[in-house]
Amino acid sequence: MPAGAGRVSVQNRSTVAGEHSLAPEDEADLLRLAAGLVAIPSVSRSEEALAGFVEARLRARGRGLSVDRIGNCVVARTGRGLARRVILSGHLDTVPGVQGARVEDDELTGLGAVDMKGGLAVMLLLAEQVESNPCDTTFVFYDGEELGSERSGLTRLFAQRPDLVAGDFAVVLEPTGNWLEAGCQGTAVFEVVFNGKRAHSARPWLGVNAVARAVPALNRLASCSTVTEEVEGLLYRGSLQVVGLQAGVATNVLPDECIIQVSRRYAPSHTLEEVTDEVRRLADGADRLTVLRSSPAGRPRLDHPLVAAFQRDLGLRVRPKLGTTDVGRFSLVGIPAVNFGPGSAEMAHTSHEVLSASALSRSFQGLSRFLGLKEE
Amino acid sequence: MPAGAGRVSVQNRSTVAGEHSLAPEDEADLLRLAAGLVAIPSVSRSEEALAGFVEARLRARGRGLSVDRIGNCVVARTGRGLARRVILSGHLDTVPGVQGARVEDDELTGLGAVDMKGGLAVMLLLAEQVESNPCDTTFVFYDGEELGSERSGLTRLFAQRPDLVAGDFAVVLEPTGNWLEAGCQGTAVFEVVFNGKRAHSARPWLGVNAVARAVPALNRLASCSTVTEEVEGLLYRGSLQVVGLQAGVATNVLPDECIIQVSRRYAPSHTLEEVTDEVRRLADGADRLTVLRSSPAGRPRLDHPLVAAFQRDLGLRVRPKLGTTDVGRFSLVGIPAVNFGPGSAEMAHTSHEVLSASALSRSFQGLSRFLGLKEE
Repeated sequence: MPAGAGRVSVQNRSTVAGEHSLAPEDEADLLRLAAGLVAIPSVSRSEEALAGFVEARLRARGRGLSVDRIGNCVVARTGRGLARRVILSGHLDTVPGVQGARVEDDELTGLGAVDMKGGLAVMLLLAEQVESNPCDTTFVFYDGEELGSERSGLTRLFAQRPDLVAGDFAVVLEPTGNWLEAGCQGTAVFEVVFNGKRAHSARPWLGVNAVARAVPALNRLASCSTVTEEVEGLLYRGSLQVVGLQAGVATNVLPDECIIQVSRRYAPSHTLEEVTDEVRRLADGADRLTVLRSSPAGRPRLDHPLVAAFQRDLGLRVRPKLGTTDVGRFSLVGIPAVNFGPGSAEMAHTSHEVLSASALSRSFQGLSRFLGLKEE
Repeated sequence: MPAGAGRVSVQNRSTVAGEHSLAPEDEADLLRLAAGLVAIPSVSRSEEALAGFVEARLRARGRGLSVDRIGNCVVARTGRGLARRVILSGHLDTVPGVQGARVEDDELTGLGAVDMKGGLAVMLLLAEQVESNPCDTTFVFYDGEELGSERSGLTRLFAQRPDLVAGDFAVVLEPTGNWLEAGCQGTAVFEVVFNGKRAHSARPWLGVNAVARAVPALNRLASCSTVTEEVEGLLYRGSLQVVGLQAGVATNVLPDECIIQVSRRYAPSHTLEEVTDEVRRLADGADRLTVLRSSPAGRPRLDHPLVAAFQRDLGLRVRPKLGTTDVGRFSLVGIPAVNFGPGSAEMAHTSHEVLSASALSRSFQGLSRFLGLKEE
């Protein structure tokens, strides 16, 4: 039996939200820790202070963990040579916004509270108690997630230190309202360029208008409708949208370049290669097609034993992840992964992120129990 | 008989290019004067030095002229109360470029030599000898022509001092290679705006993509072909070109605005109102249509007695003016006007403007004779 593919035993079938919540004082600890993380600004490209805090705390309080710092990524791992290794993964950075943390009535408000410093707090607290679990655990904290897959610290780790991010199952602690959000969509942004030849607009026959050349393709690209696709019984809504247009030299000159930017979000039944071919077909006649950036899709893999056990034993409701997360990055190297974390995804990237102590507690309890499950 | 509509007598039917050229020393004077004008930089918005030079020279050497300076416009007029008033019109400004004047082998090279300081030199020399002509003469030197009709000094004069630019016939000394270039095309630049509603590209159903809304109109606008139209036996090539496109907020956001810029050049058989209606029809569905700028078309009016006399008595070959000039501005107030000046229009706005002494001389001689024609 391959490592990590075993059945897991059931220690306790009660739901996460049930009687096994934390004691009130522990909930308060978790909320305070999350508030402390929110109080350290960590907008993308400025994660150093938070990475330093996380590293110091893991070194001080993580038990049985070896800690590596690579740039502003921090990886803490147990290394007991066990058959199964579970990865918990969270990004340190936030989108830009108004800084500050506020705790009131068991609720934490502030930039990044939901996306995803609540999840980071859960990870840091779990790191204090995984020493003697029946599985090895890896905690991955990384920078640059909000900048896109190419600039994400996790992508860098997979490229430079794949040993640190290897494992059998990964939980990405994006806010999911403590649902299991399965898989993730893929995203690709394409740049389609049509060239022409400049000419004075009084003598258009001396030139070639790049816009006129681009219009048939633009027509096809702009008329793609949303496609809903079923993957493992889950419905993912793909989309193809023209998100940018640029042409023009001067108002008396035929443009010699027309740039169309296309955003393609796709269900995990597709690959980047497939959607690139699709856009290439739609953009027929273009002089250049470039993938500006992309993030891979992640398959749900609900039938994988560890995914199934995670869902079943935590009693989680399941829905498809509509956005793109690093579940796709783990999928790319064959590691089954799920999104599971405290807070509502709808609040992410808004000016009002609010996280409750009970949501934090449910995430913590669920993960704590899962990491404690014995393999059969 | 209305003023200026009379038949003009023929003093001499030989062609301008014929035996009536200037003496070599006078040709050299004209070329030196043109070189002096080229040596004074006068890129649009920086015409003050050249306006000052022109004003001073007119005051010093113009005979029987009253001189008005309005901003960087200079108008010099005879005021003998004669039945006919001829306007000679030239702009002081040049497009940006490398400054400097060079005279070699009876040729002047330099920015603005052709467009249109050669014409200005002809005007300045004529201003010294119109005192006792059988018609009144107005010399109009103005700024800002290269910035478009709205910012042209001539437009300002027509608005603020119409008395200074009134007359029966106008010659615009744009470079025409000493052809009579009849009328001029009209130009209008339109901005067509389609609005939408922003939404994250993962949830396009929550928004409206402005590009998708704009595409049918863009389709129609970009597929307009060049139309050749005959006006008074002359062929004008109209055009409708998409010269600018702009949309895009971020690559993960549905654009809420799509801006299309359209350049419409039209034959003098059309008006701004007509082409605006045409663009409005093509842009059906747009949320906003704005005329960003426009320059009126000018009809050839080859059958007008003064235009006919000018052509016939100078023995000029006639062709339609493909560009937009201030002939349109004069036409707008009912003053028949023609383009006639030294130098090749193809050199205008290039980095290599060359003007020959003989071209200058032909323009000078032709205009000098025309201004000396007696009304029958």
